[in-house]
Parts: sequence; C-alpha cells; structure tokens
Amino acid sequence: MGHSPILARLNFPRAARPTSSLPWSTTVSLIVQKYGGSSVADAESIKRVAKRIVQTRRAGHDVVVAVSAMGDTTDDLIDLAHQVTPQPDPREMDMLLTTGERISMALLAMAIKSMGLDARSYTGSQAGMITDDRHGSARIVDVTPGRVREALDDGAIAIVAGFQGFNRDSKDITTLGRGGSDTTAVALAAALGADVCEIYTDVDGVFSADPRIVPKAHKIDRVTSEEMLELAAAGAKVLYIRAVEYARRHGVTLHVRSSFNNNEGTWVLPTEQHDVQQSNPKKGESVEEPIITGVAGDLNEAKVTVVGVPDVPGKAAEIFTIVAKTGANIDMIVQNVSAAATGLTDISFTLPKADGEKVVTALNSEQAAVGFEALQYDDQIGKLAVVGAGMRTSAGVSAQLFRALSEAGINIEMISTSEIRISVVTRADTLHHAMRVVHEAFGLDADSEAVVHGGTGR
Amino acid sequence: MGHSPILARLNFPRAARPTSSLPWSTTVSLIVQKYGGSSVADAESIKRVAKRIVQTRRAGHDVVVAVSAMGDTTDDLIDLAHQVTPQPDPREMDMLLTTGERISMALLAMAIKSMGLDARSYTGSQAGMITDDRHGSARIVDVTPGRVREALDDGAIAIVAGFQGFNRDSKDITTLGRGGSDTTAVALAAALGADVCEIYTDVDGVFSADPRIVPKAHKIDRVTSEEMLELAAAGAKVLYIRAVEYARRHGVTLHVRSSFNNNEGTWVLPTEQHDVQQSNPKKGESVEEPIITGVAGDLNEAKVTVVGVPDVPGKAAEIFTIVAKTGANIDMIVQNVSAAATGLTDISFTLPKADGEKVVTALNSEQAAVGFEALQYDDQIGKLAVVGAGMRTSAGVSAQLFRALSEAGINIEMISTSEIRISVVTRADTLHHAMRVVHEAFGLDADSEAVVHGGTGR
Repeated sequence: MGHSPILARLNFPRAARPTSSLPWSTTVSLIVQKYGGSSVADAESIKRVAKRIVQTRRAGHDVVVAVSAMGDTTDDLIDLAHQVTPQPDPREMDMLLTTGERISMALLAMAIKSMGLDARSYTGSQAGMITDDRHGSARIVDVTPGRVREALDDGAIAIVAGFQGFNRDSKDITTLGRGGSDTTAVALAAALGADVCEIYTDVDGVFSADPRIVPKAHKIDRVTSEEMLELAAAGAKVLYIRAVEYARRHGVTLHVRSSFNNNEGTWVLPTEQHDVQQSNPKKGESVEEPIITGVAGDLNEAKVTVVGVPDVPGKAAEIFTIVAKTGANIDMIVQNVSAAATGLTDISFTLPKADGEKVVTALNSEQAAVGFEALQYDDQIGKLAVVGAGMRTSAGVSAQLFRALSEAGINIEMISTSEIRISVVTRADTLHHAMRVVHEAFGLDADSEAVVHGGTGR
Repeated sequence: MGHSPILARLNFPRAARPTSSLPWSTTVSLIVQKYGGSSVADAESIKRVAKRIVQTRRAGHDVVVAVSAMGDTTDDLIDLAHQVTPQPDPREMDMLLTTGERISMALLAMAIKSMGLDARSYTGSQAGMITDDRHGSARIVDVTPGRVREALDDGAIAIVAGFQGFNRDSKDITTLGRGGSDTTAVALAAALGADVCEIYTDVDGVFSADPRIVPKAHKIDRVTSEEMLELAAAGAKVLYIRAVEYARRHGVTLHVRSSFNNNEGTWVLPTEQHDVQQSNPKKGESVEEPIITGVAGDLNEAKVTVVGVPDVPGKAAEIFTIVAKTGANIDMIVQNVSAAATGLTDISFTLPKADGEKVVTALNSEQAAVGFEALQYDDQIGKLAVVGAGMRTSAGVSAQLFRALSEAGINIEMISTSEIRISVVTRADTLHHAMRVVHEAFGLDADSEAVVHGGTGR
C-alpha cells in the first residue's frame, strides 16, 4: 500500500488504504457525495446537507453531489399518475418522475449559494448521463460530464439530479430504476476519476447483519466490492447491487456513512487487496482477516420443486428455458442425484415470490412436454447467506456453518455456494434465529449491541 | 370575408370571420389550446381537459396544447425555495419552477394516451422555445418547434410545458414571467401557423367589464387585438398584455373561452377588419359597430404630483429620467399649462403602487437639482378606461364620457387618451360606481345580468 496524502485527509484507515492512482504530489481531491430522499426530505434537511457539502468544499476538496427526490416525492408522483390512469405511458412517467430530483437539486444549489459558495444544478442530461431507452429501468451507456468539469474548474460545486439520464436516439429522458441515484453517483465518480464516492444514508454504514434482526451486529469497517455484491444479493439493503457492481467494475472506492454524524462508515473497496495486518477494533487485538464479513437474510423468495423429472440430458435446459421465458429471476438451483430405481430426479429452484405465480403457470402448461410428475410451490422459505472473501483461503467454512445450524436445531433444505458466499434455505420462521446463531458462531458479535437509528439503511 | 370551411367548423361566427390565409381546399386545421393552472388543478381536472383535447382531435383537427403548472404549484415551489433561503438564486429558481409545468404536461399526455390517442409531452426546450437569459422574465427570441411538427405529422397531440424556454448561450432553462403560458401558446400558434389559439379559462370569455363590479356586463363576442391590449393595460385580467401583443404582431387569432362548457367565447382578432354587418346578439337587432367595446378599472395605481416645477425646457425630461432609473413603469402623465404669474407648473403621473416608494425616494433626493417645490403622493386613486376601435371614427366619445360621469357626480382628476382608449382618474372609492355608470351610458348593459362563475378570469 502506498502513501496517499489525499486519502489520509479523507480519514481513510491507513491499514487498509487502497492503491491510489494519483501521484504523490496531487493535493486536490475530488469527492462525489450521494444523498438519498430521507436526507433531503424537507427544507431543514436540505440546509443541513448543504452545510455538510460546504464543509467538505471548505476543507479543500472538489465536490460533486448526486441527489434523490425529497422524501416520498417519487412515490407521490407515481400515485398521482395512477390517479390519472392505471397504466401510465412509460415515456411520460419518466418525464414526470424526474421532476422530483430537479426540485431537490435546485433547492440544494440555492442553499449552498446562500452559504457563500458557488453551486450549480444539472439534470442527468446536462451532466452527461447517457442512457439507453428502457424507460423506468434504463442502463447508463456513457458518461460525458463536460459541464460538471467546467463547474469544478470554476471552483463551483456541481449538484446532479440522480436517477436519470438522456437517451440520444429518442432524445428522451429516462429513469434508471431502483438504486438509480446510487448508480448516478458511482458513474459520476468513475467518469470524473473521483477519489471516493460517499454514499450518505441514515445508518452508520454496512453492518455485519441487519441490526434489527441481529442486535449484536457491528458496523463493518471495510469490505470488498465482491463481498458487498454478495451481501446485497443476499438481502442486505444498504446499497444497491447495481451501484456496487458499477463501482467494482470501474475501480471506484465507496464510503457508506451516516448523514447524521461525522463517524467513519464502511469502506467498500474495488479491489481485494486487504492489508493483511488489519485490526478489528471491536475485538481490540490483531487477528487475521475475518473469514466471514457478514450474514444476510431474505424472506422474499419462494421455492419451486419440479418433482419426478426424467433423468435424461436436456430436461433441465427445457425446464429453465420455460422459466426464462416468463422473465423470472432464478436464484438458487439444486438438482438431486436421481434415484437409480426410478430414473427420476427432482429439481428445485428459488425465485422472488412476486414471480412465483407466472412460473408455476408456465411450467404447468408444459407438463406433458417436459414429462415431470408434479410441481410443488413453497413460499415459506428463508434464505441465509454468509459472505466473506476469506472463504477463499479457508477450509471448513461450510462445515462450521452446517454444524452451527444443526446444533441450533435448524434444518437446511438447500445449499448453494460461490467463491465467497454460502447460501442455505431454511424454514422462514427460523431464519432470524438462524442469522443470530451463525453471526455468533463466526465471531461477528459486537461487544455491545448495535445502535439502531431506525433507518432502513438506504 | 371569404369562405373558410375550417373556421366554420371551428364555430367561428360567419359575420366576423377573419381573412384566412389557407386556401379553400385545405381541410386540416391546427388548433393550439392553452389550459391554465385552475383547469389542471388535480387528477380529475386533468382527465376532464384530456377529454376535451381528445374531442378536438377526433373532430379532425391537429392539436397542440400549452399547459401551466397544476393549481398553486408554482406558488408552493416559490414558498419552498424561500424556506431554504430568502434570496434564491435566479438560475436555480427557474430550474425549480419549471418542474410544475413538466408535471402537468406529463400527466396530461398520460391521460390522453389512456383514452386511445397518441400524445407526447415536450419541455419548453424540447419544443423549440428559445429565450434570452433573463431568469424569471425571459423574452422569447425564437421558436423552432421541429419536434412538435414531427409529432403532428405522426398524428399525435403535442403537449408543451408553458412558461419556459431554453437559452442557447448559457444552455439554461429560463421562465417567462407573468402570463408566460399564454405567451407560450401564442408563440407556438404563430410559429406553427395555427388557425386559432384557444385560451381556456374559468370564465366565458372577455367581458365588457368585470362582472363582479358591473353585474350587467356582457360577454364580448369579438374584439381586436388593439382593443384587447388597451383593455388589458387598463386592468382587464383575463389575458396578459404580452400574449395579446405577440398575437397582434404575428397575426394570431385568439379565442378566449370557458373550460367548463362548450360555449363560444370571445374572439380576439389580429386585424381591425370587423364585418360591418355585425349583429349584437344581446340587443337582438343589427346595429353599427359599437363605439365602446369595454370598460376597465384599476385600483392598483397611485399618483405622484411634482408641484411647482420651473417651466423651462428639459425639466420634464429630468424628472422622468430620474423616475426611469428606478425601473418604475409610468402609466399616465399630465402636465398642466404653467401659471403665467409664477412660471411654475405641476406634473402628475400615475404608476403601480408597488413602485411608489422608490420613485418618491428618488425624486426627493434630487429635489434641489430639479428645483421643484414639493412632491405629493396619492394612493387613493382609481383609473377607469373605456376602450373601443370605433372611437377612431366617432366624434364626441370624450364628451359623452365626461357628461355621464359629471351627471353621476363623479369628479375627473386626470385624463389621458389614445386612438382607441380614454382613461380618467377618479377617487378610488368612486371607481366601481363610475364603471357601472359609464357601462350603461355607452349601451353596454346586457338585458340580463352576467352569470359569474366565480373565476378571476385567468
């Protein structure tokens, strides 16, 4: 790890400083900050956020801000649209929804200017966020933030509307879908070469488990993008997968922290280069890298079991082609070894409950073609995941997990693994207990209970 | 007047049909419609307006709509801005305020689409409204509605956000100030060569006087742009001067009508070519062109009198240069003949009460330089105007006016005239009575009392 005076000033823990691409002599740093809806819910909150932005600028950093709509504005606008028609046109819906971010960015810029610093607001289009044409779930295809750079060159703070971009072909505004403002912030950070992208939220950072379910969860000091991806995919709600993946792919360092205090939050690093000599402040002694970073739980999935599938080549492909056509997102898949006597096997998979009905309908309609005996649908499952980059180099993690659960009398129904994650399916009503058991078994419990601010972590 | 099958279909009174520039064989007409804030105050109103637009399109016309923000949205946004800072930055204020029109245009387009017709919304920028850079009071410098034309060519209805445009130099959004949505509608009508620009409001049309003050006022069937300008300048509130002037200059026909019924409203014609054989439906017989079209009253002005001005060349210029520097808008100016004995004269002028203080301050500070004796400030005046194109060709209108007022015991304090308007200043507390007296004296009283819907006419 090299020296980075900039990152020192950013309060970055020296022990885990990522390789910076900036030369030693560079002293000006660029910080991108993202503020969500609850951080800018009213005029007072906007002024509070403006103060923080001003402090950051006055500390000598260049600042770019991505901001969401105030409070529940987006939901209110969606409601209003549905009062007009049950099926709002997608293009017009995006035109409507993007007003939310325009309102907050303009108010934020006004507030900063009233505090004596120059600030300018930019729509997604003006900031060079170029998107495809999928209204409501657009992808960013390019970022050309020329006007934002000009603002920075003039010494001004740039406020950018989150959640939106401009489609060059149709010349229409498009919104980015869930997590859009996080993604906007990360995309700007990548395009501008920012030193860090600070994601402000209403909790202190990323926790080793949801503190409302596992009271002894602790705030994680740092985590890799890969681990964060797995945690988010497994149910952790503080960051959107999309934004984390973008950060990982473009090498952007994230800092998830609270907008209510100045505490250090959780650093999400785009590389896996942890400093081996990391200290875990909660334990007060140097230990090797913890094997497990966090535990996540998800009660939003259901399990479909295709019973009695003829064990011949191609059957699995047939089944999942039918499923794919419904557009459902499949998560875990387990196929048991077929019973020699019957030549039949069962295939189980999990998916979001919201997709359950259409998949069952699609498969049932093809029962004869595929030749399976029956379909079972189970919406009482809970999915637990343990995530940790350390899993790669440690043996016995699975065994430790299964042993902890069995000692607690919790039955494992499905297992699925990746390099840095192990997921198991249990009964829904045992999930939370299982999370606490596993959290403790892997040494993640804090010495004192986590303080929960009441936020949802987003 | 030539035949115009189009205008016949538009329910245009044959007797007063303006010269159409369209050839006889043209059957497709283009209507621009403007809907104000009270017409789109909520989801129900938006659906009602959408129905009317759909009916218009289904009758075979191409339709372009300019729309204001819903209800009190603009005022609410201004309030919100002032909660954040007492002096909101102008650029950011325009970014904030323009969200109001974006919301209503998107909802309106959604509503129309849900009724089975194609509709697309466009911001002022997307619709090609090019403005100067004066935030909050921008002027339209060009209109290049390419995307609107494309929409029409595709058979779609174009909904355009009123009140806003795009400045090419700064690449910023600017708002047009008061009357901005009317002006947007007229500018679009001019650029697109529309057959008519319908201004929808909450009263039946332009009245011969404010019906809340003169119960016997009647709805005017048609009026020239020039007369409408004078009426608006004199206090009539149903149309903004700016929009009327734009219509006059570009030859746009306006139709001011109620959004609550299908009655014919008031046609505002950009030429003076009335059909001589006009019938006044209120009187039930053919009469010659009425001399007076309407009576307007204004209680928002004050009178400043500069007493004892040396009657030498240049003094008036000095005084009004001082006044001009304050930015105040002067209305009537009267200078009496100087008293031979003293060589002094008095100069009186009227101006909006809001400008009174700064003008008095400016003049007082220059008292020595100008050499006047004293300043008097009177904010208890009322201004009454009678307007009529017929004045041009009729003698004795002034005499008739002064006689009517004097017979009613109303004292005239100042007089000012133009080709088609006579203004007098009276005491404020006699203004309304004077309006009724004059309205009757010029034969404008309807046979039955006007039905007042409770709207303010804008």
